[in-house]
Amino acid sequence: MARDLKIRIRLCAWAALGPGKVALLQAVGRLGSITAAAKDQGMSYRRAWFLLDEMNRALAEPVVEASFGGAKGGGARLTPSGVAVVELYRRIEDKTRAAVADELAALSAMLALEVEEEAEAQGKEEDEGGCSP
Amino acid sequence: MARDLKIRIRLCAWAALGPGKVALLQAVGRLGSITAAAKDQGMSYRRAWFLLDEMNRALAEPVVEASFGGAKGGGARLTPSGVAVVELYRRIEDKTRAAVADELAALSAMLALEVEEEAEAQGKEEDEGGCSP
Repeated sequence: MARDLKIRIRLCAWAALGPGKVALLQAVGRLGSITAAAKDQGMSYRRAWFLLDEMNRALAEPVVEASFGGAKGGGARLTPSGVAVVELYRRIEDKTRAAVADELAALSAMLALEVEEEAEAQGKEEDEGGCSP
Repeated sequence: MARDLKIRIRLCAWAALGPGKVALLQAVGRLGSITAAAKDQGMSYRRAWFLLDEMNRALAEPVVEASFGGAKGGGARLTPSGVAVVELYRRIEDKTRAAVADELAALSAMLALEVEEEAEAQGKEEDEGGCSP
């Protein structure tokens, strides 16, 4: 049945909230470090810092508080604002999936048979899903 | 209030449906030509053709039927399958916006004041919205 659905919310011209940024925030919350969170998400420290800084600048309250430097490269933690952003985004995802389940099923029913079958099979094995032309 | 929301549906590993592809499909339906639709969407003919071909390969029924060549570069039209895809996607957008209005409002309320004000002001002028750091 239905495929993956990605929601991207544009906060303003230069800041958006999507699955990648939310996963990064969650990783920071879980791992307590931007370095570890970046590694966990397969991105450079520089990229992770840029994404977090973008959120911090867009929101009234920063989402992540970091203590740079120090012996272990400093630590980082999600602020209450960061926790709220993650929760709001996850709720948006859940509500959307529930609201459009019929439409996603209808789209899935329109897929080419081999595409549908391969996506089904691979979707069970890995989160990524997949199929070949 | 709430910002722009983009939904991207992954049909399989190599095909996804998002606002760009749907706008392109609509442009083909409106303009009756891939060349004109590509221009309308600010993309190359090559890019437009690639995107439409991706949809045609992913679905059981093609979304666009084109007659290549000819004096005016051939014409193209949306098939019933193409019309259905556009309608399903627009319904998914509408239902999502309705379902998550509260969460989008909550996110908007968390924006930095100057971000919020600038986005408000520019959002009234142009569809693009926007703000500066």
